[in-house]
Amino acid sequence: MSYTFPVERTANPKPKPDPSTLKFGKTFTDHMLIIEYSVEKGWHDGRIVPYGPLSLDPATSVLHYSQQMFEGLKAYRTPDRRVLLFRPTKNAERLNKTNERMCIPEMEPELFVDAVKAIVNVEQDWIPEKEGTSLYIRPFIIADEVFLGVHPAHHFKFIIICSPVGPYYDSPDGGIIATSIYVEEHYVRAAMGGTGFAKVGGNYAASLKAQEEATARGCEQVLWLDALEHKYVEEIGTSNAFFVIDGEVITAPLLGTILPGVTRDSVLALLRHWGLKVSERRLLIEDVRKAAAEGRLNEVFATGTAAVISPVGRLKFADSEFAINGGGVGELAQRLYDTLYGVQTGNKPDELGWTVSVN
Amino acid sequence: MSYTFPVERTANPKPKPDPSTLKFGKTFTDHMLIIEYSVEKGWHDGRIVPYGPLSLDPATSVLHYSQQMFEGLKAYRTPDRRVLLFRPTKNAERLNKTNERMCIPEMEPELFVDAVKAIVNVEQDWIPEKEGTSLYIRPFIIADEVFLGVHPAHHFKFIIICSPVGPYYDSPDGGIIATSIYVEEHYVRAAMGGTGFAKVGGNYAASLKAQEEATARGCEQVLWLDALEHKYVEEIGTSNAFFVIDGEVITAPLLGTILPGVTRDSVLALLRHWGLKVSERRLLIEDVRKAAAEGRLNEVFATGTAAVISPVGRLKFADSEFAINGGGVGELAQRLYDTLYGVQTGNKPDELGWTVSVN
Repeated sequence: MSYTFPVERTANPKPKPDPSTLKFGKTFTDHMLIIEYSVEKGWHDGRIVPYGPLSLDPATSVLHYSQQMFEGLKAYRTPDRRVLLFRPTKNAERLNKTNERMCIPEMEPELFVDAVKAIVNVEQDWIPEKEGTSLYIRPFIIADEVFLGVHPAHHFKFIIICSPVGPYYDSPDGGIIATSIYVEEHYVRAAMGGTGFAKVGGNYAASLKAQEEATARGCEQVLWLDALEHKYVEEIGTSNAFFVIDGEVITAPLLGTILPGVTRDSVLALLRHWGLKVSERRLLIEDVRKAAAEGRLNEVFATGTAAVISPVGRLKFADSEFAINGGGVGELAQRLYDTLYGVQTGNKPDELGWTVSVN
Repeated sequence: MSYTFPVERTANPKPKPDPSTLKFGKTFTDHMLIIEYSVEKGWHDGRIVPYGPLSLDPATSVLHYSQQMFEGLKAYRTPDRRVLLFRPTKNAERLNKTNERMCIPEMEPELFVDAVKAIVNVEQDWIPEKEGTSLYIRPFIIADEVFLGVHPAHHFKFIIICSPVGPYYDSPDGGIIATSIYVEEHYVRAAMGGTGFAKVGGNYAASLKAQEEATARGCEQVLWLDALEHKYVEEIGTSNAFFVIDGEVITAPLLGTILPGVTRDSVLALLRHWGLKVSERRLLIEDVRKAAAEGRLNEVFATGTAAVISPVGRLKFADSEFAINGGGVGELAQRLYDTLYGVQTGNKPDELGWTVSVN
């Protein structure tokens, strides 16, 4: 079975932006997809309508108690004019794990994937084709019941909006550039028993303060340590973190505090496919510092949908600073980016069967 | 200096609800107060307008990254027809602590208090007068800049809405009733370095799952333990927690994971004013369990704006359960409620100078 959605086309299509001036998440397309949820009807009344403001009562639950969640994925135009999504069922699976934690009703994965395909199909002329650009797809759910009080809502809206985007970090050629990371030792992102594994706004709102401190220190992102002991590396900003020490590629295990990134999962699969030594294990920040000081820290990079692979060129502690790979892009990060971006855009063979064609 | 706000009166006033049927947070008054924030102008364009829906672009920051906060306080009508607020400058102080943590711009306390007074003044006919009812005031701030991306917004809205409310827990005479509390040993509310001291939606969204488990066990609320060791008592649901053991009144200290409740602060002041033995100190849940088993747990109660004082009659662990005060309302909880509610409603002398008259 598959889902289809009635389409109400806009009478006032917007001009498409110049792809060379695209920033991240500033421009939105002509339409959006909405599905309602009520206890009686479940998810219902899915439709594609002109992009436009939501009318929300000021007592709408999401505005007070932040019961909401979001996902993020991208669509690319291939050289042979197909439109590709990258592993959208992984987003559907994660959405349901988030929803379970946040008392938001489950959504059938087929409904999610068909909804993404439907809106992208309608908006495919908005997919930019310049190197490093894509159509970013933002599905999100908000509790839109009107009440004040701390209990799960009985009414929700699932919405998908789309945004043509440029590279997450400004890069002259659309490729990847090295970033600087600040090791955050005061603020924490997520504790065991919290919502670290869920893609919810509260995690991001709580991270802004540390991000501001990183910016003040000339860094693009923070490296989060664990909430219990402030000893183990967890994530970089809003991405998963990978460290290459003495040739071993290490990333934090999924123990409940880490977002289970689709890019993280894909990178792990690729590294194993290539026969590299890969470990999902807890890694002491002290071991990272020691390896850096001794020249054994081969590479550090972050993985996520927005930036795909984001190499780290400098690691900044409160009292010291290390250049990695001479401050440039590491070999493995470049290979991963070229492979993933190549597969996502249909320019490289999709050996692991990850892409899904929309049209 | 004081602030005034232009008032646009509604053309369609709603009928006032029957005070005996009032629930918490379901009915809203005829007007709302809005103040805008922009980087260029600061907080500006404050005005009172008819209560009505907000028009929000679907890419509005608060809907995705939950950059927002809220406050809560109540207005009461006194027997001599004055309208009283209870310590509103405490809410203004806490708002600014929350804002600092959440990268939301500071707001002058006078502006906050004058805004609360102005909207309550306009809505004073909505203040219900039945025992246990009040006008609940909900100031909140949302990031309303339109973008996708993890950074603080540059535009915010401060809004106050008002709701005539009945008792938080259904009570036959409008007074207080004993509740049952489930000791939550898996999920956590807040870790050090997180946002536990801030009044932000993310804390509440993260708490819904545990609340659901408590409800399934026949309890009204959860008792949160600390995130690090799951050993120390922290809060009860969305309120502060007090334990009376061998005559000593104990509540968790404000170390960053606890909401600094206005009612908590007032209860501590009253208890000290009365010459009782009061401690703000870390308390092991094991010591609570032991005291309960040995009959030395004199009372447990929660404090908060919504329910004022909420006595705990039963404490439920995964493997055991204890009645406190025979499952009824403790003597100290009753005295605190009578005093606070009496001062708030102008029925008892305000010895500590806590109330502020609106009219």
